[in-house]
Amino acid sequence: MTPTITAFEASPDRGAGLARDMRVRWALEEVGQPYAVRLVSFAALKQPAHRALHPFGQIPTYEEGDLALFESGAIVLHIAERHPGLLPEEPNARSRAIAWMFAALDTVEPPIWDLDLARMVEGDKPWHAARQPMLEDRVRQRLGELAARLGGADWLEGVFTSGDLLMVTVLRRLHGSGLLDEYPSLAAYVVRGEMRPAYRRAFAAQRAVFDSRPGGS
Amino acid sequence: MTPTITAFEASPDRGAGLARDMRVRWALEEVGQPYAVRLVSFAALKQPAHRALHPFGQIPTYEEGDLALFESGAIVLHIAERHPGLLPEEPNARSRAIAWMFAALDTVEPPIWDLDLARMVEGDKPWHAARQPMLEDRVRQRLGELAARLGGADWLEGVFTSGDLLMVTVLRRLHGSGLLDEYPSLAAYVVRGEMRPAYRRAFAAQRAVFDSRPGGS
Repeated sequence: MTPTITAFEASPDRGAGLARDMRVRWALEEVGQPYAVRLVSFAALKQPAHRALHPFGQIPTYEEGDLALFESGAIVLHIAERHPGLLPEEPNARSRAIAWMFAALDTVEPPIWDLDLARMVEGDKPWHAARQPMLEDRVRQRLGELAARLGGADWLEGVFTSGDLLMVTVLRRLHGSGLLDEYPSLAAYVVRGEMRPAYRRAFAAQRAVFDSRPGGS
Repeated sequence: MTPTITAFEASPDRGAGLARDMRVRWALEEVGQPYAVRLVSFAALKQPAHRALHPFGQIPTYEEGDLALFESGAIVLHIAERHPGLLPEEPNARSRAIAWMFAALDTVEPPIWDLDLARMVEGDKPWHAARQPMLEDRVRQRLGELAARLGGADWLEGVFTSGDLLMVTVLRRLHGSGLLDEYPSLAAYVVRGEMRPAYRRAFAAQRAVFDSRPGGS
């Protein structure tokens, strides 16, 4: 059964691939599962029909038969558990790959998101400049620790997993901040992710939504 | 095989049960799995021996035979997948319970953590009072959405799952903020969690570490 996901009707990042449906598109492309997309306006996100699918009024959602899921991490895990290609077969390696999924979303993403959120919401406040070094240092701490663990490896657990998939999408939010460039091994890691054919197909599909809008690209 | 977890040697919250080993202790108590605890000092957290277990130098970790895991969410999921009691048997209900685990950690916890972090780290800054309403409103948004979904139910998916376990630990950080009291159904939900025998055993075990320290309670 072809699953249906939701995505923004109008891209907040002008097609840069940061909206979280990108994670689900990429996972589906990695495992070769075709999918349908339903575009949702910002207004519709907060309406009861969409809230029934997603209690927090966000994208992406995932519908497959009787199942409706929300949370990009949960959706990627659902896909990874049901198709070969995103989780190792060996049980311990599989558990470690899942730990990297949680690490990406719970430990690495929060300071990166806070840095971006401060820019978007508090960029014009008198305290913004004073807080910026603290916010950047929180990101640097996590990047340094992640780079130390990655070492010279291509992927966090040797082979590409859904842990890498989520981690690359999290790190991509730093494009333009200059912070990723301070950690060349992580910058290269992100490029490795972005060069995967499945990533490129997912990015092109998300980008096409933006390009097709009036006044798009 | 009895797993070994790590916990703080010295409780930063004076035994209030907010340290994240609480999540793992509670999950292990719910499924009736005995466990061992190794206490770690703040200094040891940042040393290579602990970093080998946890790349980000935090607690908890989970060791079971050849397997070493980090990230409380991943550890709770690992336990929930291997023992009955924390995830429904029916596949769709099981996937939804896992979605609530991700929702607790990725959508509800970040604004709650940011509110607490601002108090701890920026409480003495001149901008703290001006930012506080914004930080509280971000929390209120998520609490309102969560309360709307919970409705009059006892648990998010009808029966208690590891999604509720994580959500309750996330919401407990609001004790003392007054915010939880604005949402009586969520306050009652947290109490329901705290009244579970497995929660009480886990809390007592974590608290005993604090009480046993010189100058403890």
